[in-house]
Amino acid sequence: MKYAQRVNAMQASPIRKLVPYALEAKARGIKVYHLNIGQPDIKTPKGFFDAVKNFENEVLEYAVSPGIPELISSLQEYYTTYDMHFNNDEILITNGGSEALLFTMMATCDPGDNLIVPEPFYTNYNGFSQCVNVNVKPITTKAENGFHLPSKEDIISRIDSKTKGILLSNPGNPTGAVYTKEEINMIADIAREHNLWIIADEVYREFVYDGLDYTSFGNIKEVEDRVVIIDSVSKRYSACGARIGSLACKNKGLIAQILKLCQGRLCVATLEQLGAVELYKTPTSYFKEVNAEYKKRRDVLYNELMKVDGVVCEKPTGAFYIVAKLPVENAENFVIWMLTEFNKDGETVMACPAEGFYATKGLGRDEVRLAYILKEDDLLKAAKLLKEGLEQYVSLSKAKA
Amino acid sequence: MKYAQRVNAMQASPIRKLVPYALEAKARGIKVYHLNIGQPDIKTPKGFFDAVKNFENEVLEYAVSPGIPELISSLQEYYTTYDMHFNNDEILITNGGSEALLFTMMATCDPGDNLIVPEPFYTNYNGFSQCVNVNVKPITTKAENGFHLPSKEDIISRIDSKTKGILLSNPGNPTGAVYTKEEINMIADIAREHNLWIIADEVYREFVYDGLDYTSFGNIKEVEDRVVIIDSVSKRYSACGARIGSLACKNKGLIAQILKLCQGRLCVATLEQLGAVELYKTPTSYFKEVNAEYKKRRDVLYNELMKVDGVVCEKPTGAFYIVAKLPVENAENFVIWMLTEFNKDGETVMACPAEGFYATKGLGRDEVRLAYILKEDDLLKAAKLLKEGLEQYVSLSKAKA
Repeated sequence: MKYAQRVNAMQASPIRKLVPYALEAKARGIKVYHLNIGQPDIKTPKGFFDAVKNFENEVLEYAVSPGIPELISSLQEYYTTYDMHFNNDEILITNGGSEALLFTMMATCDPGDNLIVPEPFYTNYNGFSQCVNVNVKPITTKAENGFHLPSKEDIISRIDSKTKGILLSNPGNPTGAVYTKEEINMIADIAREHNLWIIADEVYREFVYDGLDYTSFGNIKEVEDRVVIIDSVSKRYSACGARIGSLACKNKGLIAQILKLCQGRLCVATLEQLGAVELYKTPTSYFKEVNAEYKKRRDVLYNELMKVDGVVCEKPTGAFYIVAKLPVENAENFVIWMLTEFNKDGETVMACPAEGFYATKGLGRDEVRLAYILKEDDLLKAAKLLKEGLEQYVSLSKAKA
Repeated sequence: MKYAQRVNAMQASPIRKLVPYALEAKARGIKVYHLNIGQPDIKTPKGFFDAVKNFENEVLEYAVSPGIPELISSLQEYYTTYDMHFNNDEILITNGGSEALLFTMMATCDPGDNLIVPEPFYTNYNGFSQCVNVNVKPITTKAENGFHLPSKEDIISRIDSKTKGILLSNPGNPTGAVYTKEEINMIADIAREHNLWIIADEVYREFVYDGLDYTSFGNIKEVEDRVVIIDSVSKRYSACGARIGSLACKNKGLIAQILKLCQGRLCVATLEQLGAVELYKTPTSYFKEVNAEYKKRRDVLYNELMKVDGVVCEKPTGAFYIVAKLPVENAENFVIWMLTEFNKDGETVMACPAEGFYATKGLGRDEVRLAYILKEDDLLKAAKLLKEGLEQYVSLSKAKA
C-alpha cells in the first residue's frame, strides 16, 4: 500500500525519537533526568480541576464550534491586561496551540506557498507545514547573538512570490530569545511592505526574565489586520494535558475562514473548556511566582553549562529552554552516549538534539535544546551530570582522534 | 489580505448555517424543535464523569501521543466483542472521529488525489478533504433504494489514477443505510483489485435496527492491510463533548505515518481519555436499551413522514437520521420558511437541507436530513409540526403556481 508523500516526508519528532534509549536506560535501573521535553512540574491552578469536577449535566453535549462564550470572554479579559483588545468574535478556541497553528497555516497558505520562519524553531512547525504542503523558509539566527533576528535586508531577501507570512514564536522555543520592540517593529514593517500575515506564537508570553520589556504583536496597531496571535494554556498554566489553545485575529475575514475549519471538527472538549475559563482568571501574582521559579532554574542550568570549555550560548531571557552549542561534532551521538554509556551513581540526563529545530541542512548538528523544567535541586543534579558527561565525552573523543 | 483558496472554497456547514434563522425565531418567542443536528439527549454513562472527577494529580500533564495505554486496551477489548482483533500498536486515539478522518486523508492522499465516497455523505467529509486538497469523487445513491450502493461496474467507473481509497460510513450518516454483507464484500473486492485504501467510518456501529446483521470492514480478513476503522465515543455513548475518537489499522506502515501526525499535535486531552476508558467498558446491555429507544423514535418520525403525499424515503435501518425527498422544489427555502413564517401554537421545527451532503451539483435540493434524537413525545410533536408545515407549504406553493 502507498502512503502520501507529504506525511512520508515528515521527520520523526526530534523531541521524542530518542525516547527508546531512555526507556532502555531505565530498564537497566538508571535514573534519567529529562531535560528533553517541556513538561513543567508546576502545579496546575486548582480552579481548573474544581470547574471540571463541578460539571453536573448528565449529557456531555457538543460545545459550540468557536469555543464556549465563557472561555472566550475570560480570554478577552486576560488580553486586556496586556493592552490587547479583541472582540468576542475575533477569538477562536482550538485543540491546543497546535490546532490553532495548523488551521492558520491552512487558511493562509495553499500547497506550494511558504512561510518565513526564524530558525531554530519549534520543531512541529516543520511537521504542520509539511502535512499541509506549506514550505518553511528559514532565516537563520545564532547562539552567539542570543538568537536575535538578522537585518531587515537579510529577511527580505528570503521573501518570494509564494511567501504568505512570517511565523515566529516570542519568547522563542527553543531559543529562549525575547525579541526587542525594535525587532517586533521591523517584522511588522516587513509584513506591511510585502503584504504578509504575521503568525505570532506567544504561548510563552509570561516567561520573560530579568525585568525585560515584552512587546506582543497584538500591541502593534498598524498590523492588526494581518496578525494572528496563537495562545495555549499548556505552559502558561502548566496544563499541557488540557489541549486548550486559541487564536485571536482582528481580520474578520480570516476568522470566518478558520471558523469553517472549526465547524468541520465540530468543537473542542467541553469539560476542558470549562476548566480553562478558570485558568484565565488566575491572578497575575501566579505568574510572578512561577516566573521567579523559572528564573532560578535558568540560572542553575546556565551557570553549570558555562563551566564547560567550548559551550556557546547566551543566557536566554524567556521561555524555559536553552539552546547550547556543545564542543562535540554530533550532538545526537552525544545524547545517545549519555543514555547508553554514561552514568554517575546510576543517574544520567536526556537532552534533545537541536538539528531537528533547523530547516537548513547541517545546522544545529552540534547543538542541544535543554528544558529547565525540573525542581531546583533535581535540575542542579541534572546540570552537574550533563557537565560531567560532556567533559568525559569530549576527552574520550580527543583520545580517539 | 489574501486567504488560501483551499479554505475559501469550503462551504459553510449545512448543518449549522441556518442557525441564525432559528435564533431569530427563538427571539420571537417561538419554540424550535431541532431535528437538524445529531446531538442525542441520552445520558452519558456515569463512569465517564466518575473517572474524570477521581483524577487526583496536581499537574495536568501531556498524555502520550498515540493515546493512553488504558484507553487503547479498553478499546481493544470492545473490538473483540465484534470479532475485530487489533494489537495495541494498531490503535491511535484522536481528537474526535474528525481528527482520525483528517489524519487518514493526509496520510493516504497527496494534493490532487481523490477518494471515492457514496453520496449523500457526512457533510464534513467535504470540508476535511477540501482543506487538505483531496477531491471527493461521489458515487450517487438514492432515497428510492434506501441509499444502497450501485453496481460494482458503476463504482469502478469512477476510479482513476488519482484514486487512493474508498471512504464510507456504515451505518450511514445521513442516509441511515446499513450495508449488506454483499455490499461490504463488493467494496473489499474493488479495493483489492484496484489497490485502494478503505476508510470505514463506523461511529454508528451499534445503531442498527430490525434485527439486521452488521458487517464491519474489520471483519474482512482479506483487506485487513488496507482498512482503517474510524470510531468515536460521541454518538456511541452520547459523549459528543468529549472529543475522543480513534483509528484502528493493521497496516503498521500507515500507523507509523499517522503517528507522526499524532506526535505533531502532541496528545489528546488527558482527562477525557480517562473518562473514555470507562465508556468502552460499558456493558452491552446499554446498547440494547439505547437501540430500542432509537428504534421507537425512528418509527415515530417515519410514520408521520409517510402520511404526507409526495414524501419519498425508505425506512432507514441504522444510525439516527432519515433523508427524505420532499414534495418541494428547494428544501432550504422550506426549512427557512418553517423558521420564519410557520408556527403552530408558538412551535416549529428545524430540519437540515440535504444538498450540502452531496458532491454532485444539484442533487439533494429537494431533500432534508432529519435526526431522530429527541424524546418520543417531543419527537412526535416535532414530526406532526413538520407534517403540518410541509402540507401548508405545498398548498401555498400550488396556490402561487
